Amino acid sequence: MSPGVQTRSYGQRARNAKNPAAKTLLDTMERKKTNLAVSVDVTKSEDLLAIIDAVGPYVCLIKTHIDIVEDFDSTLIAKLQNLERKHDFIYFEDRKFADIGNTVALQYSSGVYKIASWSHITNAHVVPGPSIIKGLASIGLPLGRGLLLLAEMSTAGSLATGSYTEAAVELARQNQDFVIGFIAQRRMEGLGAGPEEASDEDFLILTPGIGLESQGDSMGQQYRTPRTAVLESGSDIIIVGRGIYGSDPKAIDAISGKARRYMEEGWKAYVERLV
Amino acid sequence: MSPGVQTRSYGQRARNAKNPAAKTLLDTMERKKTNLAVSVDVTKSEDLLAIIDAVGPYVCLIKTHIDIVEDFDSTLIAKLQNLERKHDFIYFEDRKFADIGNTVALQYSSGVYKIASWSHITNAHVVPGPSIIKGLASIGLPLGRGLLLLAEMSTAGSLATGSYTEAAVELARQNQDFVIGFIAQRRMEGLGAGPEEASDEDFLILTPGIGLESQGDSMGQQYRTPRTAVLESGSDIIIVGRGIYGSDPKAIDAISGKARRYMEEGWKAYVERLV
Repeated sequence: MSPGVQTRSYGQRARNAKNPAAKTLLDTMERKKTNLAVSVDVTKSEDLLAIIDAVGPYVCLIKTHIDIVEDFDSTLIAKLQNLERKHDFIYFEDRKFADIGNTVALQYSSGVYKIASWSHITNAHVVPGPSIIKGLASIGLPLGRGLLLLAEMSTAGSLATGSYTEAAVELARQNQDFVIGFIAQRRMEGLGAGPEEASDEDFLILTPGIGLESQGDSMGQQYRTPRTAVLESGSDIIIVGRGIYGSDPKAIDAISGKARRYMEEGWKAYVERLV
Repeated sequence: MSPGVQTRSYGQRARNAKNPAAKTLLDTMERKKTNLAVSVDVTKSEDLLAIIDAVGPYVCLIKTHIDIVEDFDSTLIAKLQNLERKHDFIYFEDRKFADIGNTVALQYSSGVYKIASWSHITNAHVVPGPSIIKGLASIGLPLGRGLLLLAEMSTAGSLATGSYTEAAVELARQNQDFVIGFIAQRRMEGLGAGPEEASDEDFLILTPGIGLESQGDSMGQQYRTPRTAVLESGSDIIIVGRGIYGSDPKAIDAISGKARRYMEEGWKAYVERLV
């Protein structure tokens, strides 16, 4: 592992970032003192906007699944962008692209959602091989977008392990202008590489499956705490979903309070690891 | 490998099918004498409908990427269903689901596209592990839908090989009520299993990357002929895209002619392998 990535501040890392979306994200984290991303998985526009407005002050990143919103129309994008300006965060559409190059280029740029036009960051599986990165980069690079790769998954029985994870890191290494990091449970710099190759690697590590209490759900999701993820595993950004917005999107005060608490826990762990 | 699956007729296999979507598909293949699926990857509704209408008489299955259609609205689904009734085929939305169980259940049932409501078959990557099948089955099984798993990909440098492919087959084996087969380049029955376990396995093998001439594109896609796929590799359904509809969706006669030619090539190879 490249020594010390996780002991450098987000601000320092922003100055060395090779990709504009990564730089913006790291600058935002430093400025707002938050490494919290909220994953807002609701099916109504009204709830999506209300939750984002409630957690906005506490996050660096909002993770969306735009394709589960039942009443989506093109005006929703403008409303999302208004909240981005109001609260100073960026978007990560969690599309998990997973097709061949030509197809993902169309899925990313076109269709109803036009993801590349508004989402600063998106992500992809590496199972199709290099063509998926080539296809997405053909759309995203000219727009200053960044890509995360799924190097690991937090579900029970995930196949993103071992040589699969190493292949993901190698693809990232070969595409550092566009690939800014990983959805993963631990740091990835230098994985599968010689020490000279990995010396200036700096990947953002975004970790889902975070809860204030460790537990699981009936669909195989497993949870870890912010402290475990950031301090012990070197995660840069913790991703929290229902742990923050629960089951009532109208409970704004409770949602804000939870977001603030996760933000504080995540930041405290980050400050501790800098020492 | 379970001996003889590829020497049984589609009609015989329909009678033993454990899943209603698989049964409908196999019955359709036998009745229309076609093992051709056309993948229609265009961004305008008008072109999508025109191409489907042109190839409809020659296919058992239409493969869609509904999320690349720029002018999608809910009336498009009714128009697609009209063509389904007119030409007697079923739909396969090539969504390549690749997320955790809770998320794929929402992506499959909800959002703008409501894929489960109209697409008889969809597909998923197995990289998240068993939860993805559980999540999709919670929506698809009550509707009589079927799922294909990506056991292999036709792109250069695909990571769906070796133990990954074996894990996909094992997940299919454990979920034969819902998983009807694979996107793959060869037969999968019995892969990684003992002979007794695999004795009554029958998976549909759908093979993309088919062209009348072997060639490739600039994004890493590789092509094989209908004869190679069906006769040598035991593919059940050949998936053809631009090889049929080219670059001019208005050239209806040319598109129909190409579809007929692929249908004939695919069927000839199938009849030959029955002997």
